[in-house]
Amino acid sequence: MTEPTFDPGFSTAEMSRVFSPRGHVAGILRFEAALAGALADVGLIGPDVAGEVEARCLALEVDAPDILARGWAAGSPLLPLLEEIRAGLSPDAASAVHRGATSQDAIDTALMLQAGVGLDALRAGLMGCGAKLRDLAAAHVATPTMARTLLQPAGPMSLGARLALWLEPLVRHIDELEEARDNLALQLGGLAGDAAAHGMEAAAIATATAARLGLVAPPTSWHGDRSRSRAVVAAVAATCSSVDKVAGDIVLLAGFGEVTAGSGRSSSMPDKRNPIDAVRAVAAAQVCAAGAAVVLGARPPELERAAGGWQAEWLAFPLVFHTAGAAVEALDRSLGVLEVDQERMLEALGGVDHAAAIVAGERVVAAVTAAFSAVEERG
Amino acid sequence: MTEPTFDPGFSTAEMSRVFSPRGHVAGILRFEAALAGALADVGLIGPDVAGEVEARCLALEVDAPDILARGWAAGSPLLPLLEEIRAGLSPDAASAVHRGATSQDAIDTALMLQAGVGLDALRAGLMGCGAKLRDLAAAHVATPTMARTLLQPAGPMSLGARLALWLEPLVRHIDELEEARDNLALQLGGLAGDAAAHGMEAAAIATATAARLGLVAPPTSWHGDRSRSRAVVAAVAATCSSVDKVAGDIVLLAGFGEVTAGSGRSSSMPDKRNPIDAVRAVAAAQVCAAGAAVVLGARPPELERAAGGWQAEWLAFPLVFHTAGAAVEALDRSLGVLEVDQERMLEALGGVDHAAAIVAGERVVAAVTAAFSAVEERG
Amino acid sequence: MTEPTFDPGFSTAEMSRVFSPRGHVAGILRFEAALAGALADVGLIGPDVAGEVEARCLALEVDAPDILARGWAAGSPLLPLLEEIRAGLSPDAASAVHRGATSQDAIDTALMLQAGVGLDALRAGLMGCGAKLRDLAAAHVATPTMARTLLQPAGPMSLGARLALWLEPLVRHIDELEEARDNLALQLGGLAGDAAAHGMEAAAIATATAARLGLVAPPTSWHGDRSRSRAVVAAVAATCSSVDKVAGDIVLLAGFGEVTAGSGRSSSMPDKRNPIDAVRAVAAAQVCAAGAAVVLGARPPELERAAGGWQAEWLAFPLVFHTAGAAVEALDRSLGVLEVDQERMLEALGGVDHAAAIVAGERVVAAVTAAFSAVEERG
Amino acid sequence: MTEPTFDPGFSTAEMSRVFSPRGHVAGILRFEAALAGALADVGLIGPDVAGEVEARCLALEVDAPDILARGWAAGSPLLPLLEEIRAGLSPDAASAVHRGATSQDAIDTALMLQAGVGLDALRAGLMGCGAKLRDLAAAHVATPTMARTLLQPAGPMSLGARLALWLEPLVRHIDELEEARDNLALQLGGLAGDAAAHGMEAAAIATATAARLGLVAPPTSWHGDRSRSRAVVAAVAATCSSVDKVAGDIVLLAGFGEVTAGSGRSSSMPDKRNPIDAVRAVAAAQVCAAGAAVVLGARPPELERAAGGWQAEWLAFPLVFHTAGAAVEALDRSLGVLEVDQERMLEALGGVDHAAAIVAGERVVAAVTAAFSAVEERG
Repeated sequence: MTEPTFDPGFSTAEMSRVFSPRGHVAGILRFEAALAGALADVGLIGPDVAGEVEARCLALEVDAPDILARGWAAGSPLLPLLEEIRAGLSPDAASAVHRGATSQDAIDTALMLQAGVGLDALRAGLMGCGAKLRDLAAAHVATPTMARTLLQPAGPMSLGARLALWLEPLVRHIDELEEARDNLALQLGGLAGDAAAHGMEAAAIATATAARLGLVAPPTSWHGDRSRSRAVVAAVAATCSSVDKVAGDIVLLAGFGEVTAGSGRSSSMPDKRNPIDAVRAVAAAQVCAAGAAVVLGARPPELERAAGGWQAEWLAFPLVFHTAGAAVEALDRSLGVLEVDQERMLEALGGVDHAAAIVAGERVVAAVTAAFSAVEERG
Repeated sequence: MTEPTFDPGFSTAEMSRVFSPRGHVAGILRFEAALAGALADVGLIGPDVAGEVEARCLALEVDAPDILARGWAAGSPLLPLLEEIRAGLSPDAASAVHRGATSQDAIDTALMLQAGVGLDALRAGLMGCGAKLRDLAAAHVATPTMARTLLQPAGPMSLGARLALWLEPLVRHIDELEEARDNLALQLGGLAGDAAAHGMEAAAIATATAARLGLVAPPTSWHGDRSRSRAVVAAVAATCSSVDKVAGDIVLLAGFGEVTAGSGRSSSMPDKRNPIDAVRAVAAAQVCAAGAAVVLGARPPELERAAGGWQAEWLAFPLVFHTAGAAVEALDRSLGVLEVDQERMLEALGGVDHAAAIVAGERVVAAVTAAFSAVEERG
Repeated sequence: MTEPTFDPGFSTAEMSRVFSPRGHVAGILRFEAALAGALADVGLIGPDVAGEVEARCLALEVDAPDILARGWAAGSPLLPLLEEIRAGLSPDAASAVHRGATSQDAIDTALMLQAGVGLDALRAGLMGCGAKLRDLAAAHVATPTMARTLLQPAGPMSLGARLALWLEPLVRHIDELEEARDNLALQLGGLAGDAAAHGMEAAAIATATAARLGLVAPPTSWHGDRSRSRAVVAAVAATCSSVDKVAGDIVLLAGFGEVTAGSGRSSSMPDKRNPIDAVRAVAAAQVCAAGAAVVLGARPPELERAAGGWQAEWLAFPLVFHTAGAAVEALDRSLGVLEVDQERMLEALGGVDHAAAIVAGERVVAAVTAAFSAVEERG
Repeated sequence: MTEPTFDPGFSTAEMSRVFSPRGHVAGILRFEAALAGALADVGLIGPDVAGEVEARCLALEVDAPDILARGWAAGSPLLPLLEEIRAGLSPDAASAVHRGATSQDAIDTALMLQAGVGLDALRAGLMGCGAKLRDLAAAHVATPTMARTLLQPAGPMSLGARLALWLEPLVRHIDELEEARDNLALQLGGLAGDAAAHGMEAAAIATATAARLGLVAPPTSWHGDRSRSRAVVAAVAATCSSVDKVAGDIVLLAGFGEVTAGSGRSSSMPDKRNPIDAVRAVAAAQVCAAGAAVVLGARPPELERAAGGWQAEWLAFPLVFHTAGAAVEALDRSLGVLEVDQERMLEALGGVDHAAAIVAGERVVAAVTAAFSAVEERG
């Protein structure tokens, strides 16, 4: 195993924990344990055999990067880990491990388990950003500012309205991230994707395995169909695009001198006040979009299993979550230190009457606040 | 106006009608008529004034490419068309036209109206493909064939199961295209996006305009938030990706000599039987993905209206629908002429026992057929 | 043939002429004429037979969109046109047409001929932009302005230096567009790409055909290798990216009120002065980048000829040139109306000493001006 | 500093060494040492002061991931490292460190130094692949095989010709990777990009610094112009696209049973012979393309320094080289174990006469071999 080759520098503590080799191996072990449990549920193995496998998977400590790298080098990503699981098991238990499954079953299922944690983390992060935006919008509903279209002055508007317009799509993304969980499906198709090795019990085993993992039990396996992983990535990318929008607008407003958002220093100009968290959010969101493009623009899998496109997801999927997490966290920080220069905003308006804009702003802020409250109450 | 600069060659009759300059102008006129009607609904103008505007919009015949090109050249895409609408109206009616609206309101709303027709057309097209796949899967549930992972032989499977695995994501896309309609929202924000010009009646006018157009009435305008158009495009791109998968697999199977799918001729080898419709579907799907990337990878709009990113959507949005329509239509044709060479498939299996695979195939085909029937019944 | 399905609205008169169905058919006819001439050059057909083919190709008038659409529908893009060429020819001449060639030979060669005109047009357009920037830089070398990094104030700089830094990459792009011509290669491989049908004369025929067309004669055909078309598109996309940079900066400076660049009107705010040409350049450049991504991100061709990826180029290639042409033209217009508000710039500096910045600016302007002059002299 | 967040698993030993935090810090230290040397060259500091800085930079051992992460967290990526360099220096030497430079100067220059090693490594890797392809083409010039267009049988061809057609673009990429070195330019512009802090000596300092680093001395700095880093990435991406083509074709031929290329095992079917290195090459190449798209599709930098787009390059640039290295290495391995099943190839031809194809193949192999030999001799 080579040493870690580079550090993306765009992640969060939680995403680093979940979307790491260790987090991936943990997901695979959960899959293998659940499969053994399901085999016992339908009576194909005894509960004690299943218990032995589950205990082994629970207790196993491995060098995750190493064991994954060895599998990859051998062209069979799961074999070293399966050998490690089976070592020290009774013959019955060893033969029950991974029964009727293929590498892609374990790997895809693990990615879905990881994605579940990642989606929840992003949702929580957006909730935090949303609360800050809601409070800022309420505080600034009567603050007049210059609207800008094509970056040109376009008359007065309520700053609260602008902030509410930033918030409105985030409210929908919070729901979309929840709905994206419908795509977190068990993968269990065996060699050809038809679960033939599980015979007449195939549907029951799949249902029981999915239930044990808290995943959706799909009607079929999806080795050659990436629409589920695609939908998960699409929801994250959509979220990041809106994060990019808000962060980008903060950078613009800081450029106009109408807000400050942090105090990034410069190695050559010590008193600059760079909106560094907003810039970081923009950068992370752009990398997220590129990672998402690996999945969204992937060539379709060839017949029963892709020859390259699926393997590319192994890198792209974590990259998308790392950078999305970083983008949301950075936006949250940026909103936390946002300071508005009301005088500068008034100055830009140059005395234009803004009464109607404030009235309109109250309506916009109220509408979005109500929508956010509804999401907040659902939790 | 320059002559039409190029013909994409990847479209359908319906998409050509809807996503043309003429179709776009028709959408704008519907918006302007509905807005006038809504202004009357809330009492801001008289019903006769509204009626005069509506009649004018309904009857107006313009040279659509020319009037759009002139607006674009002047940097104000709507002005020539508004002048044309107002010409010949009474002063009251002329002054009611486009009241409180901005160009982006009309253009975005027109695109949403066009997208509604486009989504329905794609959904109908997928239904047709799905019915063909369902019938093929039923007919071939007992046909054994060689599964291929990484394009390598991977044991026997039911051809019906493979066909059902192709169908399964299409079933979900049919639903997703329907759900994508939730993003077809009225755009109505006026200059700064806060609908200030409509005063206390803003919400009522928006609700009435949306109702007249069969669009969602969103809580706010979305000039600077592209998450709605993005979601529409994402649903179309996801569909196209699965179309690409099925068509690509047909090309591969034709390469293995296990199916034929049409008889494209060659200018240098007359007896070739190229799977030309499947190739066309793959090509159109790739262009669709690129068009989608304009929207999915767009830099975020700057503050209250984008300086470039939104304008790029004007070309990308139609391109996505033209090519998606072409891809679905070509897949449908390809499935319509698909012929299976059962002997060749048996030969590839070389006598391997396939009884278990056929049993598994029955389960897979039944599960997917049930899912498709449920969608079909919903209509 | 359906009516033209949409008008991109991002093109120029020249690109519309060259990258149209008519322009494409003209390229194919030039290829067929040159091939016949080359066959005569090496003695495989008589000069009178070649002359008959050449005269026919020169004189032929066809409905270009229709004949291309019919070929595409039949799955053999060239057959209808070849039948049209052969109609009315003597049997000897008819049998000499397209001898040893395949559809891809004619289509790829035609695209290369079109690309040659397109590259020259872009180069000329950049020269015009460059001259304007050179003059502006010279005029403003002593104009102090506020540098902005991360959009934050970063101390004084010469406006001339900023303009020269815009110009510097354009100078290199002018050379790169010229160098990209090295990729304009004849395609001539016949059915399998090995030119077997031309026997021992294959190399001589290729050399003669290329010479007649002013194209590079490559060592082999390149049906399954898209690196040449890719390199052409990459050069155009690189150019467009720098155009996007300059136009985007103009929009930003207009936002800061430090320049104006045109007077796009608004349908709701008549006295706005939108930098409409710069916005158009940004929009066109974004679509260009997406079109380029079809080629740059294409899945590789399968074996001897791609099943989808190549066909996608037919739409992407023209799209790239149309939009690149539009972007360059729009930037040129924007630079032509650029007006600098020196007082506003001084005001932003707030009295900071800028003497050193002006001195540095002189150096930067002189260096870039020298580089541009060198390119201008080469022509 | 969080623990390494994920391991791409697509890299090589050399790329892991160069494109790591340690490799990046090494590049920054080389920049700072060279700048001090250049300041002495032009007489702005004494040679002993420069020597002290150079010795410090040479000897410094730091925890590279940590020191970069701390800088990034503080919004000033270079400050912690500069403090570390200055610690223990005499006041004169400490004040000479980084004089007149800005963070972007050091970071961009370091990336260019890293890219130089990366380009050489890719070039050497391609040379190895090329030699294998040349030998294979020579060995199989008389081996007849079925050509396939659109994956359909297209008549006989020489297998050697196919292999030579794979090699031909690689020969040009070897040159292009060399030419891409012309873009490896020093970055040295100071705060506003005009090198004002270096006064009249600016050009001389830049020339001397570049010479010490073996980099091109550009006429100006390029903070806001990414065309150079873009050109480097474009050359790597073009290479990877052709690697993808060859590897993808190997997977296809293995699918047809006409070659084997390695013996990747399956966790569920032990006697499969998956072409695992070719699959890995395809996967790595796809991720490379996505990383490249971050740079090639980046939104343009805003004025004097990008607010997000440049920072995204920090992750994308290493990702491109890691995955490109992995793709080339995997292709090399795949070619090293490629075995041809001549009988199967003959069988597919079914007795068709292939004499003309072999003759044509000799010409193609000879032409490409000559081109490769010319590149090999240049070294």
